[in-house]
Amino acid sequence: MDIRFSAGVWAFDGCGDRFLLRGYRDGKLVAERLKEAASIPGLSGVELNYPADVTDANLDEVEEALKANKLQASIIGVDHTGQRKWQFGSLAAADPGIRREAVILAQRGMDVAARLGANQINIWLGQDGFDYCFQVDYQKAWRWLVESLKEIAGYRSDVRVCVEYKPKEPRTHAFINNAAKALLLVQEVGLDNIGVTIDVGHSLNAGENVAEALALLAGHGKMFHFHFNDNYRSWDDDLLVGSVHLVEYIELLYWLQKVGYDGWYSLDVFPYREDPVQVCRESIATLQGILNLVNRLGIPKLDELIAKGDAIATLSFIRQHILP
Amino acid sequence: MDIRFSAGVWAFDGCGDRFLLRGYRDGKLVAERLKEAASIPGLSGVELNYPADVTDANLDEVEEALKANKLQASIIGVDHTGQRKWQFGSLAAADPGIRREAVILAQRGMDVAARLGANQINIWLGQDGFDYCFQVDYQKAWRWLVESLKEIAGYRSDVRVCVEYKPKEPRTHAFINNAAKALLLVQEVGLDNIGVTIDVGHSLNAGENVAEALALLAGHGKMFHFHFNDNYRSWDDDLLVGSVHLVEYIELLYWLQKVGYDGWYSLDVFPYREDPVQVCRESIATLQGILNLVNRLGIPKLDELIAKGDAIATLSFIRQHILP
Amino acid sequence: MDIRFSAGVWAFDGCGDRFLLRGYRDGKLVAERLKEAASIPGLSGVELNYPADVTDANLDEVEEALKANKLQASIIGVDHTGQRKWQFGSLAAADPGIRREAVILAQRGMDVAARLGANQINIWLGQDGFDYCFQVDYQKAWRWLVESLKEIAGYRSDVRVCVEYKPKEPRTHAFINNAAKALLLVQEVGLDNIGVTIDVGHSLNAGENVAEALALLAGHGKMFHFHFNDNYRSWDDDLLVGSVHLVEYIELLYWLQKVGYDGWYSLDVFPYREDPVQVCRESIATLQGILNLVNRLGIPKLDELIAKGDAIATLSFIRQHILP
Amino acid sequence: MDIRFSAGVWAFDGCGDRFLLRGYRDGKLVAERLKEAASIPGLSGVELNYPADVTDANLDEVEEALKANKLQASIIGVDHTGQRKWQFGSLAAADPGIRREAVILAQRGMDVAARLGANQINIWLGQDGFDYCFQVDYQKAWRWLVESLKEIAGYRSDVRVCVEYKPKEPRTHAFINNAAKALLLVQEVGLDNIGVTIDVGHSLNAGENVAEALALLAGHGKMFHFHFNDNYRSWDDDLLVGSVHLVEYIELLYWLQKVGYDGWYSLDVFPYREDPVQVCRESIATLQGILNLVNRLGIPKLDELIAKGDAIATLSFIRQHILP
Repeated sequence: MDIRFSAGVWAFDGCGDRFLLRGYRDGKLVAERLKEAASIPGLSGVELNYPADVTDANLDEVEEALKANKLQASIIGVDHTGQRKWQFGSLAAADPGIRREAVILAQRGMDVAARLGANQINIWLGQDGFDYCFQVDYQKAWRWLVESLKEIAGYRSDVRVCVEYKPKEPRTHAFINNAAKALLLVQEVGLDNIGVTIDVGHSLNAGENVAEALALLAGHGKMFHFHFNDNYRSWDDDLLVGSVHLVEYIELLYWLQKVGYDGWYSLDVFPYREDPVQVCRESIATLQGILNLVNRLGIPKLDELIAKGDAIATLSFIRQHILP
Repeated sequence: MDIRFSAGVWAFDGCGDRFLLRGYRDGKLVAERLKEAASIPGLSGVELNYPADVTDANLDEVEEALKANKLQASIIGVDHTGQRKWQFGSLAAADPGIRREAVILAQRGMDVAARLGANQINIWLGQDGFDYCFQVDYQKAWRWLVESLKEIAGYRSDVRVCVEYKPKEPRTHAFINNAAKALLLVQEVGLDNIGVTIDVGHSLNAGENVAEALALLAGHGKMFHFHFNDNYRSWDDDLLVGSVHLVEYIELLYWLQKVGYDGWYSLDVFPYREDPVQVCRESIATLQGILNLVNRLGIPKLDELIAKGDAIATLSFIRQHILP
Repeated sequence: MDIRFSAGVWAFDGCGDRFLLRGYRDGKLVAERLKEAASIPGLSGVELNYPADVTDANLDEVEEALKANKLQASIIGVDHTGQRKWQFGSLAAADPGIRREAVILAQRGMDVAARLGANQINIWLGQDGFDYCFQVDYQKAWRWLVESLKEIAGYRSDVRVCVEYKPKEPRTHAFINNAAKALLLVQEVGLDNIGVTIDVGHSLNAGENVAEALALLAGHGKMFHFHFNDNYRSWDDDLLVGSVHLVEYIELLYWLQKVGYDGWYSLDVFPYREDPVQVCRESIATLQGILNLVNRLGIPKLDELIAKGDAIATLSFIRQHILP
Repeated sequence: MDIRFSAGVWAFDGCGDRFLLRGYRDGKLVAERLKEAASIPGLSGVELNYPADVTDANLDEVEEALKANKLQASIIGVDHTGQRKWQFGSLAAADPGIRREAVILAQRGMDVAARLGANQINIWLGQDGFDYCFQVDYQKAWRWLVESLKEIAGYRSDVRVCVEYKPKEPRTHAFINNAAKALLLVQEVGLDNIGVTIDVGHSLNAGENVAEALALLAGHGKMFHFHFNDNYRSWDDDLLVGSVHLVEYIELLYWLQKVGYDGWYSLDVFPYREDPVQVCRESIATLQGILNLVNRLGIPKLDELIAKGDAIATLSFIRQHILP
């Protein structure tokens, strides 16, 4: 099995929050960040947001830097969140002009993805949702989402569109807030090149068992892309992989092998106070350690134990391998 | 609009929990419970579980008691939870014999519903889920669910099948845990007579905005039945309607009018320590008070305010009517 | 009863988050923000953070602006969060130099408070906590907290020190995370001029019933200051007062009267996308509407109903006044 | 260090819930349950509830059975929850007659504990709390709690009184809902023989980091007794130890060694659908596996890493031992 690891390059940037807007450290140019990424053992890909990390202006430069650092663009994230104009929504905004602009941005992001060889874009709709009761018309918002995504996925069939769900933040409620809703949405869009991104932290935050979410999406042919990180369930803390949900991660990596997921294993961490290179390196080491464990346990053996249905026996078998 | 109120008759029973299994008060025969229900102003319907409140043995008796008390059966709940044989699942159990039995039980429930004039059954799959990681094969479980529900909904088209989602309890994780998952499931079953039940407490527990869940289901023609109660979000407390989520209830009742929901407004409360008649009476009074408020506010006026998109102005308008 | 309303002046600033660091609107100088605050009917006080809104450099200017706008400084918040040096803690930092600096900052904040006539400082320890298991020595941190606060409260007895608890953000875990922990801490410090600030949103986020937290603190003579806002329990959303927890707010305002709280009613809202003047105005109108309701209900009548212990009857009595 | 393992004997009983009140299996007499407990490798103690597992009537018989099975009574739980008379509270009930009865029951429990050689009772106040806003007078309840516990702890100084906190269930809100509140309470009672029980699941449910709660209590000399189990944070699922919070358990066992906790390691699991002997056996194996790991890691080495404050490096060190 040939696992390809990737990381979002925002991890190497300044990492601010609402109390420290200028960041917990100084920000860095994308070229420097790519260099840092390239120093991480096992990492061969990077995620770049458009237009944030990569823009129309620095596209050539980014392409160069990728080559120079022997990194592939794993996916291009379309930034529908980080500018004021999107604050009441993008693909589902009530304002048709904003929706139009948001669709066009995604289409340009597809072109950028194709140019950089990523061949897939990530669409996370951070601002499409609501903060208060009585703020939006849910039915109209749903229709606008479907229509906008049809225009995007229909724009070019050689670039995949990966819709990433998240229950909240920056809005108190996002429209596309769990795996089933995301699947429903992409099914309604009805095109082959649209599917779903699971971000492990978002899935935990949605109250999901991540392996179950993966199984549902893979069973419907829509498991397109994966973000790894960890949190304490109530918020998207974007922590070191496995630092909290180790048992869930073991189950998840077993299922990733089982369903034959062959996409990127991409890190989406946000190390406010930690060294990003260290966090990425340790996240990859943890994932590799778990993959080795799953191999030692054996997928057929785990299948057999699950088929027997004695959960305690199965957990005991696993425990004997990690706490001998 | 002519609102029809109903209540689950288990509210009038002993109401035990795991620490007080014999109940917070003595249990009562169904005939007595129906008499109590009939004493509640505005209540014209009752929910009965089969085979628990209504059984093959007491069917005639229940039919008589309904007539005597001038009550309609609003829906028949099929009890796939309260017997030991279902403890590892019913419609999605790994054991094909259990699945068969569970399907047949639901079909018999449909016959009972037809006989009692309810013409709809409620299927809440309390035991279909898992407690631990590595306990079940999520993909098989999904297939079994779809197959079982096809056999049920296909059994007779004159009885509606309402699937009620709930994120947890009695399992730590239920398969059908939110509105979108339930909608995905019934769409996959693909028959006209299968739809979804929203239980307000389950929806809150799933982290949903209830009005949004309603809007999604109604927009897809699958909003079949409704359970009212309240809780503190982290558990299915089955409290007095509006005792916690008053603002959400106002939004919900506005949306129920807006989408033209014409089904039952059914109470699913579990008053361990309170008088169930008092809780149902006050729940109905609260719902009617909110409906009156929504009428005073005016649906076109609320539509207009929402279209303007100024959430604070909309909430201010509502506040002036409840806190003058 | 003479209620004094106040608001944190950060509400009138740019309001950024980690995805939109430059803010959802342009930031404003403190003088402009004070002018906005002064335009809000019923508002007579403002909270200022030191050294952020008020600094050593602009102290005279702020004093002037307060006078010119007929505003009082209700409390001075000491900013132990918004600079990089505090990122691993302030009063409980492992580095003794940082702790010293943090103590001195608070003492200077007390001088500023005295100078501006506020006579109380607010200490919210946003960075004192941890993100990961195995990150800190909890016992040392507790001792450092107690020692640091002794030095602060002991610095001058004419300025009150109000410790504000919050369960998380910006750390995934804060040390002083609920009302009982805050009370334990200030009792251990053991000086008369140290007490607790309840921020309603932090209390909800801590899983508390806010009225109960207030009753506990007031019963121990440590209920010093109050922040009003609202949220959806899982995060500190800093929303419009009463937009979510209306029932809890009614109970809270009843208890505030009952225990004779005579401090400020201060707004701590963070209106990313809304007009801050509108949010503060509507928050005050909501609080006044609830106070009027509590007066109409009558505190002796509510006392009597609570003494009877029939929760449904009490809630029914209240409901009849808001949903007639 | 010589670890003593214990288990609550209710684990071996029928285990019902509100949907299956007669239990997921048949109940068993206490003598049979003790025999099952005795079959578990490494288990030397049992917890018994009075008057439930042990009563005035079967006291001699239980004493015999303990001897016959070579089991010690680790602690006697006083049952203030499982009878209807406690439904609105016990030690903090508004009815003084109920409070009196509750105090006497605890005192008799102390005599039973002394007689059986346990020398400590556990007080978990399941019914002392509230379900609704406006249901109770929080200040009176607190005073009644303190007074009742004074009478109990003062009754005989040779038996320890361990107060177990839990945020909810069976009430939607319990008064003694977290570690700090419990510590505040026992400090206010002010007697040497009263302290706190941490139940890991209750602590997780309270949003606590369990190791931090332990450190706080141990630092104040009040860490008396420990219940082990696991859950998904939002409810007291009473699952197999370490099946969810493995990382937290490693940190907890490190801290238990660090503070020199020398009490019982007692299992409080509730295996509805699993074999209780298997769950207890595997729980103990997991705890022993973690203890071995902590020894391999070395407490001085962990102390040193924590003092350095590089969380990622510390977690990496641990990860290398469990996922080599």
